[in-house]
Amino acid sequence: MKIKAGIIGATGYAGAELVRILLSHPQAEIAAISSVSFEGKPLSEVYPSYRTLCDMECGTQEEVVEKSDVIFAALPHGLSQELASQCAAAGKRFIDLGADFRLESEQEYQEWYGCTFLDQELHKKAVYGLPELFRDKIRGKELVANPGCYTTGAPLALAPAVKNGLVSTKGIIIDSKSGVTGAGRKPSQGNHYPELNEGFHAYKVACHRHTPEIEQTLTSLAGEPVTITFVPHLLPVNRGIISTCYARMLEGVTFEQVRKAYEAFYKDEYFIRLLPEGANADIHHIKYSNFCDISLHYDARTHTLIAISAIDNMVKGAAGQAIQNMNILFGLDETTGLKLVPPAF
Amino acid sequence: MKIKAGIIGATGYAGAELVRILLSHPQAEIAAISSVSFEGKPLSEVYPSYRTLCDMECGTQEEVVEKSDVIFAALPHGLSQELASQCAAAGKRFIDLGADFRLESEQEYQEWYGCTFLDQELHKKAVYGLPELFRDKIRGKELVANPGCYTTGAPLALAPAVKNGLVSTKGIIIDSKSGVTGAGRKPSQGNHYPELNEGFHAYKVACHRHTPEIEQTLTSLAGEPVTITFVPHLLPVNRGIISTCYARMLEGVTFEQVRKAYEAFYKDEYFIRLLPEGANADIHHIKYSNFCDISLHYDARTHTLIAISAIDNMVKGAAGQAIQNMNILFGLDETTGLKLVPPAF
Amino acid sequence: MKIKAGIIGATGYAGAELVRILLSHPQAEIAAISSVSFEGKPLSEVYPSYRTLCDMECGTQEEVVEKSDVIFAALPHGLSQELASQCAAAGKRFIDLGADFRLESEQEYQEWYGCTFLDQELHKKAVYGLPELFRDKIRGKELVANPGCYTTGAPLALAPAVKNGLVSTKGIIIDSKSGVTGAGRKPSQGNHYPELNEGFHAYKVACHRHTPEIEQTLTSLAGEPVTITFVPHLLPVNRGIISTCYARMLEGVTFEQVRKAYEAFYKDEYFIRLLPEGANADIHHIKYSNFCDISLHYDARTHTLIAISAIDNMVKGAAGQAIQNMNILFGLDETTGLKLVPPAF
Amino acid sequence: MKIKAGIIGATGYAGAELVRILLSHPQAEIAAISSVSFEGKPLSEVYPSYRTLCDMECGTQEEVVEKSDVIFAALPHGLSQELASQCAAAGKRFIDLGADFRLESEQEYQEWYGCTFLDQELHKKAVYGLPELFRDKIRGKELVANPGCYTTGAPLALAPAVKNGLVSTKGIIIDSKSGVTGAGRKPSQGNHYPELNEGFHAYKVACHRHTPEIEQTLTSLAGEPVTITFVPHLLPVNRGIISTCYARMLEGVTFEQVRKAYEAFYKDEYFIRLLPEGANADIHHIKYSNFCDISLHYDARTHTLIAISAIDNMVKGAAGQAIQNMNILFGLDETTGLKLVPPAF
Repeated sequence: MKIKAGIIGATGYAGAELVRILLSHPQAEIAAISSVSFEGKPLSEVYPSYRTLCDMECGTQEEVVEKSDVIFAALPHGLSQELASQCAAAGKRFIDLGADFRLESEQEYQEWYGCTFLDQELHKKAVYGLPELFRDKIRGKELVANPGCYTTGAPLALAPAVKNGLVSTKGIIIDSKSGVTGAGRKPSQGNHYPELNEGFHAYKVACHRHTPEIEQTLTSLAGEPVTITFVPHLLPVNRGIISTCYARMLEGVTFEQVRKAYEAFYKDEYFIRLLPEGANADIHHIKYSNFCDISLHYDARTHTLIAISAIDNMVKGAAGQAIQNMNILFGLDETTGLKLVPPAF
Repeated sequence: MKIKAGIIGATGYAGAELVRILLSHPQAEIAAISSVSFEGKPLSEVYPSYRTLCDMECGTQEEVVEKSDVIFAALPHGLSQELASQCAAAGKRFIDLGADFRLESEQEYQEWYGCTFLDQELHKKAVYGLPELFRDKIRGKELVANPGCYTTGAPLALAPAVKNGLVSTKGIIIDSKSGVTGAGRKPSQGNHYPELNEGFHAYKVACHRHTPEIEQTLTSLAGEPVTITFVPHLLPVNRGIISTCYARMLEGVTFEQVRKAYEAFYKDEYFIRLLPEGANADIHHIKYSNFCDISLHYDARTHTLIAISAIDNMVKGAAGQAIQNMNILFGLDETTGLKLVPPAF
Repeated sequence: MKIKAGIIGATGYAGAELVRILLSHPQAEIAAISSVSFEGKPLSEVYPSYRTLCDMECGTQEEVVEKSDVIFAALPHGLSQELASQCAAAGKRFIDLGADFRLESEQEYQEWYGCTFLDQELHKKAVYGLPELFRDKIRGKELVANPGCYTTGAPLALAPAVKNGLVSTKGIIIDSKSGVTGAGRKPSQGNHYPELNEGFHAYKVACHRHTPEIEQTLTSLAGEPVTITFVPHLLPVNRGIISTCYARMLEGVTFEQVRKAYEAFYKDEYFIRLLPEGANADIHHIKYSNFCDISLHYDARTHTLIAISAIDNMVKGAAGQAIQNMNILFGLDETTGLKLVPPAF
Repeated sequence: MKIKAGIIGATGYAGAELVRILLSHPQAEIAAISSVSFEGKPLSEVYPSYRTLCDMECGTQEEVVEKSDVIFAALPHGLSQELASQCAAAGKRFIDLGADFRLESEQEYQEWYGCTFLDQELHKKAVYGLPELFRDKIRGKELVANPGCYTTGAPLALAPAVKNGLVSTKGIIIDSKSGVTGAGRKPSQGNHYPELNEGFHAYKVACHRHTPEIEQTLTSLAGEPVTITFVPHLLPVNRGIISTCYARMLEGVTFEQVRKAYEAFYKDEYFIRLLPEGANADIHHIKYSNFCDISLHYDARTHTLIAISAIDNMVKGAAGQAIQNMNILFGLDETTGLKLVPPAF
């Protein structure tokens, strides 16, 4: 029998991407979807791509919880906590694509999001769902905080170096560039076609909310506090994030050592593709897939490691990873329904 | 046991797209691939998207024929005839994505392509593989001429009207707009990024080689000679073709009648999505899928039918349709491996 | 002394483009600008491109009228009539980039725009400002109705053939493709970057408001009623319109004759570039300039003339043409300030 | 009398951009152009944008030297040295858009370009043409080495901080993103539309030839050796470079101080626009103009200055700056012919 999956916030981009992937998942089916803005409308009216494939009507949050074994929530921050409680009470698994359960420190959550933890117990039960780094902790859980997009690609690029103590934990710089879907479906002046097309700029420089989340992951790997400088930019493409990460290699460490550490660290990971020397991670090669491509580079003149990762922000950076987490929760092979082939063009 | 599929010309765009789709086909597997330009190289070196998914090396044409049950050829015109003979001799099925077997009239083939029929018998055995229009003729055949991109979208937009005698066969105008992949993988000045980006223009105005092929299909449907005016344009997008087709409705025919005829004609076709009134066919909604979306419009002031179709030129207009034909040849459900979900963005 | 030019609706795209061109006009200066949405804000805050070049604050409509010799209005239809009266009363010249004064027939204006003529006298004084076709009528006038974007490019492509009676006035089809700026500055779902990017579709098929305006121009040239079929499409580029126009050539007329007629018709026109045989009009070659490139093609098989024009919808299709009209009204050389070089890329 | 300007390599992108700007320059005129690939062809055949504006034929290098007062050379590196000697011998001013005269150290030139200095005297006479930083040295010279694109934007972003000793000269990181025209006009697989579109990647990571040139400029400003880490990326847009520069602020230095230093440093520079707090430099706002927009940001958590510059790689990063240098050489106002308005969209 198939897993009954429900999607709350199905008409946002992350919700729509969950639908796309679940439609081909061999062991799950979409049981119900909800949307505040489009309640009562078929999803295929909102996204004509899905005509004949998902003409299901958007219902209410309650209906979704009731009909589903696992609930994916793709909601603005602040709206998931109460919902998570309801799911917990109903014995349903809950995978949150929002930010509410990602930060372990309530203080940081308050500082960056301006909200508090409504239910401390629930927060303790939540697990941070970045499988390649924290797989063992995810198994058997009921509540997964699915990482954000930047917070998936950048840590994956740096993890083996940080975990193995090959680079300084001081002075790490992450310069990221994201496709537009990261900003969501709501039209705005900045995402109006003629003003973004042929443009490029940084935004939320050194003050983006993903900063503490990346630090939390790196700190956990390093075993000591890591503070980063993080600057995101907006790319005129639909999908994909490149994170160019700069870390000073410790004295005596060679690039050869670093490369070996990455190979060992990721050798059994289906979704991580460590590129051969000379190749450059490119969003073109991973789009529409759950892959994270990583290329390693060395600046001998300044003994700096430059690790670059490419992910599709809506797949490995959102919906795909959420389904990867679902597979873990339900004891399926982690790649089930996720062997998505990135198109060659 | 899975069908062993071979691809000749695997490093061109149509070949690469065959790979993408076959990788997820539940009842076929890629047995061998060939490429003149990249012989001896792994496909994933040419297309890094396929790293770990298809690292198979490009071999020779002969190897492909030997190892496969069905051979897909994605070659420039003129190169398929000899190959088709070899396949026929070896008892292999052959699906030609090139132009050599599409035109029934050798005279037209000479006029538009400057080549002759090498083996008349073989040409008689060939069938034109547009399943929605000629399914019954395809079954049981060994040699399929897969239609071109424009020659799929435009006839599908006009077929029900022409077949049912609802429009004049005189004065049909087809104004098509195609994504760049239609021009192939070879770099050229015209497809150099800075000169195509933010540009748009017609090309081969009223002299494109797909003209006689479209006419052949419409003539066959109409039961009388149809001559069209066909103008293709180049869109600054990767994929997709919109064909805006103009046909004068016969006196007394109502738009209501026309719509009903389309509904009846396509009611059992999985890959044809006839859009509701008010909707416009958009390449955004079909890309990466095998769908052909059709929207119908009526200009009451001039009693003109405007039928617009949208297809992905590399899927329904090439590789997807080729696999649809393979499914027919091997007695599979026509949609096997082709229920590709067009992404919402 | 320089002409004092005022812009009402300066923060819309047409307004912003007027600013761009006027900033380099040697015999005009921007005296005042207004905007309802951004009153009190410097224009360069709305358009950071203009920082240090036009930091002028947006004022009120009244201020603009008072301070200017000529008033450009870039307003939604229905809002120009009263303003035109005020300008007339104040003895100011008025160039309307909106639709209120374009149609001579009040009945058509009612039918397509749902409004009535407020002041019949004023409408009689208005002149339709397509200089290449109606230059003599524009001279000495006070009130110019600046044509719309589609209504500039399509008539210019057809004018010599229609005026010289070389084509049938029946069955003319105009298939146009426009860049996104034509839809204005206001964000909408359809112009949200991820939903337009890599997309393409027709809209307002056979019911776009520019239809009667094109017909009015062609009728005036033909000396008999012309009814057209007009289908606009939305291109994923910022600027530019291609209009592919199909007209049946009359019996006995040769393509040679047609070409000669175009050469004669446009031989003294700076802004019209009739392309040599084999070339295709391309928006890439005219963007940011006031040029209209025209390429002529002949379908011998159906004796059809295919005339294709390319204009920048915001320049020759809006602001540039408005300034061309200003130059005429003030007795300047028509090209003053308009010798804008279209960039090569 | 106008300055007679000649362009060698006129059909490359930098050459074509020189033409665009010179066509509107009030005190210079194009005397002659040359091209090896297109000798004997009118420029407007290569760039149809220039039809009727510059139909001049491409001649030989010799003709250009003979007919011009100032020669602009846009050639691959290694080809300018001999030409420079000829110009010097003929008493002509020479502005080199290539790399041959940019590096003062022959050793670095050898290391990064594999060439030697042919004429030591000539190299001593050459001046590095970044006017905002070295204006006084340029005046009165005959031979100007025009900076490269990355080597203009990044130093301008960092100059005031480095010159005033506000940041550490160690550990400076420059993460740049460039539009495609930087790679030139020659088609390649990497710049083929379908493979670049919707893609993004780094290239020549920590080994790009502009590295020593940036270091030379920063070292000259700092008065001590500066070694940088430089990573360029390829943006899917035609024009523009964003350089995101990271520098550790020295202890005790405040961001307020830094901002004041920038304001003072650039207060009289027409082409530098220091953006107000909260704004982000965007290539959208400077394209087609000679402006360099700079935004300053502060990461308080790591005491890091993030200075971001935006330039049009073909204008301030090539042709525009070359003409700025010409204006200096000929004693004209530096902004003559360069008050190009960046379009709002």
